[in-house]
Amino acid sequence: MKAVFYEGDRRIRVGTCTPRPPGPNEVQIQVAYGGICGTDLHIFHGAMDRRVRMPQIMGHEMSGRVHAVGSQVQGIRVGDPVTVMPLDPCGVCPACQAGHSHICHNLKFLGIDTPGAFQSFWTVPAHTVFRLPETLSLQQAALIEPLAVACHDVRLGEVKAGDQVVVIGGGPIGTLIALVAREQGAHVLVSDVNPHRLALIQELGFQVVNPLEEDLPGLVQQQTNGAGADVVFEVSGSAAGARTMTELLRTRGLAVVVAIFGQPPAVDLFRVFWRELRLRGVRVYEQEDFQRAIELAASGRLPLDKLITSVRPLEQLQAGFEEMEQGGANMKILLEV
Amino acid sequence: MKAVFYEGDRRIRVGTCTPRPPGPNEVQIQVAYGGICGTDLHIFHGAMDRRVRMPQIMGHEMSGRVHAVGSQVQGIRVGDPVTVMPLDPCGVCPACQAGHSHICHNLKFLGIDTPGAFQSFWTVPAHTVFRLPETLSLQQAALIEPLAVACHDVRLGEVKAGDQVVVIGGGPIGTLIALVAREQGAHVLVSDVNPHRLALIQELGFQVVNPLEEDLPGLVQQQTNGAGADVVFEVSGSAAGARTMTELLRTRGLAVVVAIFGQPPAVDLFRVFWRELRLRGVRVYEQEDFQRAIELAASGRLPLDKLITSVRPLEQLQAGFEEMEQGGANMKILLEV
Ligand SMILES: [Zn+2]
Ligand SMILES: [Zn+2]
Ligand SMILES: [Zn+2]
Ligand SMILES: [Zn+2]
Repeated sequence: MKAVFYEGDRRIRVGTCTPRPPGPNEVQIQVAYGGICGTDLHIFHGAMDRRVRMPQIMGHEMSGRVHAVGSQVQGIRVGDPVTVMPLDPCGVCPACQAGHSHICHNLKFLGIDTPGAFQSFWTVPAHTVFRLPETLSLQQAALIEPLAVACHDVRLGEVKAGDQVVVIGGGPIGTLIALVAREQGAHVLVSDVNPHRLALIQELGFQVVNPLEEDLPGLVQQQTNGAGADVVFEVSGSAAGARTMTELLRTRGLAVVVAIFGQPPAVDLFRVFWRELRLRGVRVYEQEDFQRAIELAASGRLPLDKLITSVRPLEQLQAGFEEMEQGGANMKILLEV
Repeated sequence: MKAVFYEGDRRIRVGTCTPRPPGPNEVQIQVAYGGICGTDLHIFHGAMDRRVRMPQIMGHEMSGRVHAVGSQVQGIRVGDPVTVMPLDPCGVCPACQAGHSHICHNLKFLGIDTPGAFQSFWTVPAHTVFRLPETLSLQQAALIEPLAVACHDVRLGEVKAGDQVVVIGGGPIGTLIALVAREQGAHVLVSDVNPHRLALIQELGFQVVNPLEEDLPGLVQQQTNGAGADVVFEVSGSAAGARTMTELLRTRGLAVVVAIFGQPPAVDLFRVFWRELRLRGVRVYEQEDFQRAIELAASGRLPLDKLITSVRPLEQLQAGFEEMEQGGANMKILLEV
């Protein structure tokens, strides 16, 4: 069977590996499509060399059909269309004990801490497998994992109908957050500095702003009658984003920290105090977010096809990374496995 | 009648002024005791010269008895023991409209934006007046305003019985927060670098830590079995406090930003993301916090007397400021009016 391996220092090798038959509580999936994630690009760049075990098979966004099931597995049958919630928590740490196993202190992330989906057959714990409706295309289904991130972020962001929401950073996750927040009935404005992205996001029906060219805080003040935004999603990971998030919020508004900050940025805690603002960090997803993402994708209401920039054969993972590095209007590149 | 005036540049003048009779919706109070607040010290230092109108009568923490009531005032009678919630909101701004009038965008703070309580007779809007039980001493009642701050902070901090709470900064507000959190059934640890304060707070029955001498994060980890604190109150306004607050928290724990930060400090947003931490700013109080503070003070369960460092005649306001500047174990200095 086919597999692609990261071997360190921007090297990707196309090769083969032996399919691993499922253990009693495992499921073996024939992978149909895999999505390339920013985290995969990070690995490709060597930024996670201390965490991954080379040669590493990457990939945690995927869709496929069940090929074999372990002896103890119930409710999943050969041939079922499925996707995977790639989290394997320890079950015993303080986070797991408190019911937050998705951010387990010893979390194994499939495709980073274990072999991933960029291979013909992927064997995973049965508890990570979610069945899909037959009506959902397997290409769109490969977007369920990042869509579940967005569902988690919007849920913990407590977005309500009529809210003014601002998304700082219009990459794949920012755009999915905008789509999910709109489904909640919010008015969503997306801020980004990449004109190609802004054009694409505007095509999806969103108000867009380039904060280098327009006065974003002034605009938000104006269209909220001086109140400010109800919820701001910080998805840029930039110092400017960290500064802007508190500036945009209304009294007691909520800033949702989605991005990974490499350095602790300055945060205007005076304004946090003065306006009684709230901040909260959000990471990955819980079961209900995966369910909601599947429902939303299957509803056909989201323009997921427009987020798929290209579909390439598995062997072209390296070319996919290079396409992502060029920037432009790239959203999601899929691999056909 | 007596009054003390701030005239700029650390100058306090003891003088007289003409009592202002109450308007239809006002109450005139014969002031018994006034507490000196850190904000008053700030004014004395000239840090708020652009906001106050000199000569400024300061003072917003107080107790007294009603001397006269306006023609429209109901439910308040001459002779009633009272205190004042010194907030006069505009009623029309976005914060007021959203039900957050305590942090009104155009808030008038009595004693800062209007004449304050450091005079024999203080005339205030009737809606700011709270009646006190006769059983509560007027000295202790002068602490109700800062106690209401603590009630607000602990309420918005969602402190529950059994929680591990850490208070960073053991000044008057930090100590009152510790007392109110303990009333909620929390286990409270207070961190400060002032050994005099730590000794006093330890006498009140709290676990205390000097983070310059002990490993505070290690200690919190140890006594929570590796989980971290449920709630951290940042009352120090220091860069070290801003760094420590996220370090101490458990998964999804809450940092309550009580302090006034002069500069936006670095905040570890990676950890906020990684552990799905929450932050929220809190300021002043709402009606229910004042009610709760009066109940708590009247219950006799709080050792408020131990927080009163000294009681001086009104004329010694300047000496009171100088006492505060010396640091040491100073908590609250009262003026007898
Ligand atoms: Zn991903
Ligand atoms: Zn765990
Ligand atoms: Zn005060
Ligand atoms: Zn207002």
